[in-house]
Amino acid sequence: MSDPNPKFNLTIVGLGLIGGSIGLDLSNSPLIGYRTGVDKNQNHQQIALQRGIVDKISNLDSSIENADIVLLALPVNIMAETIEQVLNLANSTCVVIDTGSTKSSICKHLSDHPKRNQFVATHPLAGTENSGPQAAMARMFEKKVTIICEKEKSSSLAIEVANTIFEALGMKIIFMDPEEHDIHVAYVSHLSHVSSFLLGQTVLDIEKDKKNIFNLAGSGFASTVRLAKSSPEMWVPIFEQNAVYLNQALSEYIIHLQKFQNQLINRNVDGLNKILNEANKIRKVLEGITP
Amino acid sequence: MSDPNPKFNLTIVGLGLIGGSIGLDLSNSPLIGYRTGVDKNQNHQQIALQRGIVDKISNLDSSIENADIVLLALPVNIMAETIEQVLNLANSTCVVIDTGSTKSSICKHLSDHPKRNQFVATHPLAGTENSGPQAAMARMFEKKVTIICEKEKSSSLAIEVANTIFEALGMKIIFMDPEEHDIHVAYVSHLSHVSSFLLGQTVLDIEKDKKNIFNLAGSGFASTVRLAKSSPEMWVPIFEQNAVYLNQALSEYIIHLQKFQNQLINRNVDGLNKILNEANKIRKVLEGITP
Repeated sequence: MSDPNPKFNLTIVGLGLIGGSIGLDLSNSPLIGYRTGVDKNQNHQQIALQRGIVDKISNLDSSIENADIVLLALPVNIMAETIEQVLNLANSTCVVIDTGSTKSSICKHLSDHPKRNQFVATHPLAGTENSGPQAAMARMFEKKVTIICEKEKSSSLAIEVANTIFEALGMKIIFMDPEEHDIHVAYVSHLSHVSSFLLGQTVLDIEKDKKNIFNLAGSGFASTVRLAKSSPEMWVPIFEQNAVYLNQALSEYIIHLQKFQNQLINRNVDGLNKILNEANKIRKVLEGITP
Repeated sequence: MSDPNPKFNLTIVGLGLIGGSIGLDLSNSPLIGYRTGVDKNQNHQQIALQRGIVDKISNLDSSIENADIVLLALPVNIMAETIEQVLNLANSTCVVIDTGSTKSSICKHLSDHPKRNQFVATHPLAGTENSGPQAAMARMFEKKVTIICEKEKSSSLAIEVANTIFEALGMKIIFMDPEEHDIHVAYVSHLSHVSSFLLGQTVLDIEKDKKNIFNLAGSGFASTVRLAKSSPEMWVPIFEQNAVYLNQALSEYIIHLQKFQNQLINRNVDGLNKILNEANKIRKVLEGITP
């Protein structure tokens, strides 16, 4: 009797925070057979094996041969070319899923690939300020959202496999087109990172006595600046690929800061109150209550 | 035989997040006798009694009569006048401690008060984005820093009492002069709040479909924008009183954002990398490691 629920052999390309956390979550999944990891960094390979993120390490080419699912978690500047390479090697039933934080340029690069329908363009929205397989966390994706782009360009089998994986991670799935994705994440995700990176840089630049930063960080600074610890290797390519929309978002942010500054200079208490009361509405929005 | 460790009767003026959390922490303290609460908001009075923040509610005048310690936790626009009123009523051994987030204008207002030496100007650096006695938390101050200003203007008894209270809360004490305090908190605390309030306002302004904010908030936005939920009633007076230094800090922040934006527009990957690597140094500073 053949197994009614055959297991998928999974290859994870990139054993950092995202790839590593996915590997941890799928370690005991009844869906998954063998987990193979690919990473150029030997230290990452070792940690991934030690932490049970994958069952074995291989190189890209040979890891694709017997893979049913290839999941890529790489910086976005090398994502599109690597997906192309994986699709070229993949057998006809293999499903390829990326996790890149930008989607337009990746989708554009792959739009005419003969195996485009085996690929699912996704962005699971989860993470921390830490990086590498040492930062991987079980259940990091739980109750978070993953975005699938250009659903219509993926085969129904590929979408079904992607759904199964993201459901196993505990995620909710929503659909967007790539440009729409890039606009929204520019505002909600990428701008948050910019505001935090630059808050960190500004305070480091101005506060000559660093001991003061340490002493005063309990006042909200530590959490607002948390994302400034994020990896430049991951984030510079994201900012570069999403430069057009991020630039728009950043211009809006600067304009809002300058309007606040004007009210501050004029000691306009009513104006300041109005801005802070507007900002307060974020509480309900984050609770899922639409104003 | 008289009690070798007499208990202090404590009055807390302002039963919000700060006053309420102090009341909770001192509820079983061997140092404290009777805790009396003063707050104009009847709802706050009830919650404070229900939660055991204070033992009884009174009005300002009669609560001062038998108080050994009066601790004020009010918005800074009404702080200086209320401290003055409390000092006028206080008996000669009563110690008065404020917790305001700005110090220059409060210290200036009280500098010539005949009972100035009974007053200790402090700023315990702790809090959350929530307000009111319902938001009060036990052990919120633990391992955080409190700043005492103009130590030399307080009697040694007053400083000793303040030390005892802040040690009971688990805090570390540092000393600064009021201007120095206001400059440092402008950068490390107040600017963080501005960056977060304006991030919230910008995203609410631009993202017409609020459901997207909710869906995408897992990407770091939720934590970066947390402080945007803070109370305008508390924060507008802080911004107004610290407008000069906050304006300087905000100008620096905007300049840093604009420099980043230039690198972004020019797709200058090296320039972006340099900025993000600089910002990354905040990790070690927050761990107490001076670069």
